[in-house]
Amino acid sequence: MNWEAILAPYSQVVKELKVKLKGMRAQFEYESKHSPIEFVVGRVKPVPSIIEKAEKKAIPLDEIDQEIQDIAGVRVVCQFVDDIYTVVEMIRSRNDLTIVEEKDYIARKKISGYRSYHMIIEYPVETISGMKIILAEIQIRTLAMNFWAINEHSLNYKYDGAIPEEIKNRLQRAAEAAFKLDEEMSKIKSEVREAQRVFRRI
Amino acid sequence: MNWEAILAPYSQVVKELKVKLKGMRAQFEYESKHSPIEFVVGRVKPVPSIIEKAEKKAIPLDEIDQEIQDIAGVRVVCQFVDDIYTVVEMIRSRNDLTIVEEKDYIARKKISGYRSYHMIIEYPVETISGMKIILAEIQIRTLAMNFWAINEHSLNYKYDGAIPEEIKNRLQRAAEAAFKLDEEMSKIKSEVREAQRVFRRI
Amino acid sequence: MNWEAILAPYSQVVKELKVKLKGMRAQFEYESKHSPIEFVVGRVKPVPSIIEKAEKKAIPLDEIDQEIQDIAGVRVVCQFVDDIYTVVEMIRSRNDLTIVEEKDYIARKKISGYRSYHMIIEYPVETISGMKIILAEIQIRTLAMNFWAINEHSLNYKYDGAIPEEIKNRLQRAAEAAFKLDEEMSKIKSEVREAQRVFRRI
Amino acid sequence: MNWEAILAPYSQVVKELKVKLKGMRAQFEYESKHSPIEFVVGRVKPVPSIIEKAEKKAIPLDEIDQEIQDIAGVRVVCQFVDDIYTVVEMIRSRNDLTIVEEKDYIARKKISGYRSYHMIIEYPVETISGMKIILAEIQIRTLAMNFWAINEHSLNYKYDGAIPEEIKNRLQRAAEAAFKLDEEMSKIKSEVREAQRVFRRI
Repeated sequence: MNWEAILAPYSQVVKELKVKLKGMRAQFEYESKHSPIEFVVGRVKPVPSIIEKAEKKAIPLDEIDQEIQDIAGVRVVCQFVDDIYTVVEMIRSRNDLTIVEEKDYIARKKISGYRSYHMIIEYPVETISGMKIILAEIQIRTLAMNFWAINEHSLNYKYDGAIPEEIKNRLQRAAEAAFKLDEEMSKIKSEVREAQRVFRRI
Repeated sequence: MNWEAILAPYSQVVKELKVKLKGMRAQFEYESKHSPIEFVVGRVKPVPSIIEKAEKKAIPLDEIDQEIQDIAGVRVVCQFVDDIYTVVEMIRSRNDLTIVEEKDYIARKKISGYRSYHMIIEYPVETISGMKIILAEIQIRTLAMNFWAINEHSLNYKYDGAIPEEIKNRLQRAAEAAFKLDEEMSKIKSEVREAQRVFRRI
Repeated sequence: MNWEAILAPYSQVVKELKVKLKGMRAQFEYESKHSPIEFVVGRVKPVPSIIEKAEKKAIPLDEIDQEIQDIAGVRVVCQFVDDIYTVVEMIRSRNDLTIVEEKDYIARKKISGYRSYHMIIEYPVETISGMKIILAEIQIRTLAMNFWAINEHSLNYKYDGAIPEEIKNRLQRAAEAAFKLDEEMSKIKSEVREAQRVFRRI
Repeated sequence: MNWEAILAPYSQVVKELKVKLKGMRAQFEYESKHSPIEFVVGRVKPVPSIIEKAEKKAIPLDEIDQEIQDIAGVRVVCQFVDDIYTVVEMIRSRNDLTIVEEKDYIARKKISGYRSYHMIIEYPVETISGMKIILAEIQIRTLAMNFWAINEHSLNYKYDGAIPEEIKNRLQRAAEAAFKLDEEMSKIKSEVREAQRVFRRI
């Protein structure tokens, strides 16, 4: 299989979503407003991960475009928890994509401690062989949630999903520390936002 | 006037068009085909140039978004003259923009010697205050045409549109040399295109 | 004053340091090792901040290159506290810069709660008018330290250095939450690092 | 062989040279002067090409760092022929690299029609395992020379160095057209340079 050619439209979707979401950030700055978006990253799922997921879920390779929803993935990282919901609203109101599904792992965090807001979207992309509708996942998190999630991801990978109890507990305590940081930040958020406005105007 | 905020949607359109047109180039490469696009550049018209053009044409500043069509500008540079028309076809077939006007300064070159293909498009862009339709200009040229045009632009600027006869003649001869180069290249184009295909596959 | 021309060598130093420090990160990845560098950002001090600092400290404008040490600034952000000292060692062993001063605000944090490692360096940069020695500041922090410091910076700016007691206390509690997060992360760091190694190899 | 790790220092050299040479261009612009550098590109020689060259010249793989001089390659493209020699002088006067060899294929063009200025340099690069001296090639050309050379390269690749006579002749005529364009441009260069100065100042 020519994976590079198969994944080309996904790679294009990631690039376009990044430019569009980063553009929102820039527009807030030009208008001297607090941006709910701190930074945006994106990636196309690596081929070995696609194959592994397809095997685990018994998905034929010619159906991965329908059955694997996170081949194209974009992550929006925010400063405050509230900002996440502002970003969600902004994405909902766009006309260049369609929302297929939303999962709020902040209101209901996973047992592991994982917190994040997920949106699955359909995105129409023009390719050299015509228009294609591509599924993509947008994850929206605070810096503290992101910090924790990156570490959990590495550990899950190492232990193939079966993290030993002792390490799970330590990870749990780190999750609580991250959660606590988000809470303390929330208490100074109106102050900081106001400060950013002042800062930009000068 | 907060020009930065006014021009933000134009700047966003330039970024999106660049990512979309560069993406086409990448897709040709992934499929080991000759790309009709050599490179893509873009710019937002500088504020002094916008003001000057508005004054010259007596356009009120609140109508520049309708009356000045090249505030957002993207340039596609091609290897061969034929490639220009391939790019034109590809742009015509896209669903994420509408073509308003086309001018073929290759079939009918300007008296100055200027050659290029121009398309004026309407492009819908999502901003933090909703969707906006923005006019943009796409210029499509060969490397030789581009080379010449950049120099002519500098000279026009220097002499404020009134280039002295002697320099105009020299520029004319350079235009002929650029035209001749495009012609000679056309004669080897099928050979070179084929070569590129071979090259990529290895 | 043509500030753009004056600041050009500083801007060049920031670009070169970023490419060099980011390159270290890439080399760790190629060798499938945990990178002590998570990300690198840089900036040239904005002109109004340079002028303000010069006035506050009564520095004549023709001595700012000697007296203001952070006109060129680069920030290295790490995952774990230990990584900071690895980065410090790596910078000390380079031959393309000279260390002038080091301040360890992690061992001895500031009263405000600020933690970070600072290095002032001399960096030789080639310009179009010959070689120049430029002073630059490198700040090295964890993600949690960085998160907190960005917020403190905004507040300091807003209150012009005199943050009200009540807000100072809240900021203090956020600093403790950030510190706690770093501590909890330290306890899982050997696990996570090992996991990253495994992850890369696959 | 872990080629990615072996080539990491070369990739780093290419990145540093690009940032340094592009920086020169920026400095000319800040000072409102004509930049002798139009654009800079770089690449690390692809692994198959390294292996092929090593086999052809019977170089053992552990000696390629000494025997293959263009693993790290940077290309500087200029507007006018004269600019090439200005760039050569600027590179000669730098203290962060050593020139090993120079070849002037402009004064004495190759039989094929190839014109370009080549410099082989030694560049000290800091890596995570200490400082390394890396050989790199800098090619300096006009836009017209570059245009032609890219096409010749593709054809050479296709015919494995043995381009048929008929195509060679056509390529020859294209080389003459490119040469003619450079000549015509030279005749307007003082005018254009002056114009650029005016342009920048406004």
